[in-house]
Amino acid sequence: MATLLISEVGPRDGLQSITTVMPTAAKHRWIAALAAAGVPEIEVGSFVPAKLLPQMADIQQVVAQALTLPGLRVAALAPNFRGAQAAFEAGVHKLTLPVSVTEAHSLANVRKTHAQMADEVRNVVALRNERYPHIALEAGLSVAFGCTLAGAVSDDETLRMATTMAALGVDEVGLSDTSGYAEPVQVRRLFTRLQAELGDRAGGAHFHNTRGQGLANVVAALEAGVTTFDASQGGIGGCPYAPGASGNIVTEDLVWMLQAMGHRTGIDLPALLQARTLLREGLPDEPLYGHVPDAGLPKGFVATGEVAR
Amino acid sequence: MATLLISEVGPRDGLQSITTVMPTAAKHRWIAALAAAGVPEIEVGSFVPAKLLPQMADIQQVVAQALTLPGLRVAALAPNFRGAQAAFEAGVHKLTLPVSVTEAHSLANVRKTHAQMADEVRNVVALRNERYPHIALEAGLSVAFGCTLAGAVSDDETLRMATTMAALGVDEVGLSDTSGYAEPVQVRRLFTRLQAELGDRAGGAHFHNTRGQGLANVVAALEAGVTTFDASQGGIGGCPYAPGASGNIVTEDLVWMLQAMGHRTGIDLPALLQARTLLREGLPDEPLYGHVPDAGLPKGFVATGEVAR
Repeated sequence: MATLLISEVGPRDGLQSITTVMPTAAKHRWIAALAAAGVPEIEVGSFVPAKLLPQMADIQQVVAQALTLPGLRVAALAPNFRGAQAAFEAGVHKLTLPVSVTEAHSLANVRKTHAQMADEVRNVVALRNERYPHIALEAGLSVAFGCTLAGAVSDDETLRMATTMAALGVDEVGLSDTSGYAEPVQVRRLFTRLQAELGDRAGGAHFHNTRGQGLANVVAALEAGVTTFDASQGGIGGCPYAPGASGNIVTEDLVWMLQAMGHRTGIDLPALLQARTLLREGLPDEPLYGHVPDAGLPKGFVATGEVAR
Repeated sequence: MATLLISEVGPRDGLQSITTVMPTAAKHRWIAALAAAGVPEIEVGSFVPAKLLPQMADIQQVVAQALTLPGLRVAALAPNFRGAQAAFEAGVHKLTLPVSVTEAHSLANVRKTHAQMADEVRNVVALRNERYPHIALEAGLSVAFGCTLAGAVSDDETLRMATTMAALGVDEVGLSDTSGYAEPVQVRRLFTRLQAELGDRAGGAHFHNTRGQGLANVVAALEAGVTTFDASQGGIGGCPYAPGASGNIVTEDLVWMLQAMGHRTGIDLPALLQARTLLREGLPDEPLYGHVPDAGLPKGFVATGEVAR
């Protein structure tokens, strides 16, 4: 069984999708608890203007605090050159640029055409290569499996954007099911092609659980050889266009399933469940999702996780 | 892509797991709506003493009404010879006998040792063969993937019980994840062995979503060649030992995923979502689960289901 990389994106994808602003100190306590549970990588926020996303106004502080946590790989997201520059200066270990597969979503999400976004990525790569060669750069392809604005997305469209991004010089290209359209057959097929065409620049999977299919898609992605999975503690987030629908796949449920399947995640599951209490303290009024936190661990369950550092 | 058989078990597994008693007329309206949506098989209840399960006190009436629905395969469950006899007399098309893989669960669930339950099954088979040869008989193996009482269950234990039941003459042996312990690797392995050892007597999968892994297990079971899946509209049920944990896998989410994967189920998805309103009317105060009912269908989604009859 494989060693898998779980990247916790709740502090970014989760917190930016709800209107409640989590206090900076609460963010740090939560992120510290996640790191202490052995979560190897955490996307701690977005470098975006505070007037657009007040939830992310403290990103500088959050990154600075996260960088003090031993062994943690600190990731962030930036939608443009300006944000990327700030993220590099803040000293993140990894930066993800969200690149939409459909032009409709690109215009809605980052207010740029495909051509404009490609220019942005080109400039970010140049800056990284020149001044920050140690920082990892990922293009995360939004709506790679379907789009609430444009509808169905063909495999070719997604693969074309993936090869474009790889050619521009990012280190890896991940596929995001932004709108919860992905199904297991498509997931297996698309990641298999991604790996065939991009080799070691093929990145991980970022699934939402919009239609309850999140962990099913993980099984399909595993079969295609994917080893990196984004997830969000408590499945926080959700989609404003889908009332009641949850956000990212739930980290607690994902880690339980992967460990039950015999995979190694380096995460201590009871400690991960403990970290959820810090999330609850920071967001006392938001719904949290997940089945394992309610059901507990099966009788006789032997966790395969271990905190490696 | 395969044609799959979805067996709706909400009227049995769902309703018997909650204390609210759905009125008989409401049960019929709901079952009729499910059948009209193209659900090919519905387990409409259990033949058990009304004093043990008052939710099932109207089973005779419910079966009689369901038998009037054109094209519907009417299934029921009975835990012993007496219940099976009543079910046969009522004219069900299929009967499932719950047989626990662990003796601890057998004693708790049907108050019988393995040996006593085998006698019961032997007598039911004899009666069926002699007087009701047209009625299908399934042994549904409870706690086939793990047990809240006994803990881990080995593949060999489950396979041993499966071959015992096949030898006793049931038509098929299904595997039930009664307590939500199953994970995809185990599911693939166990159903692959079941088919190797039982051939065309290998039955379907009955999953719960206790730890959120229900649809992930479906993906694994599909890979092992399973073509029959139990599910419960609204995921009703739940487990008294797992507060907040949902019951069976949610029919709406299952059918959406299978159709998105290109499989044929014969079920009209919008009509299935409509049937949920009848369930809601019959159980106004119970929690209903499921993501697709909240999120709706993806833009551009083309249903592959069709009502065949």
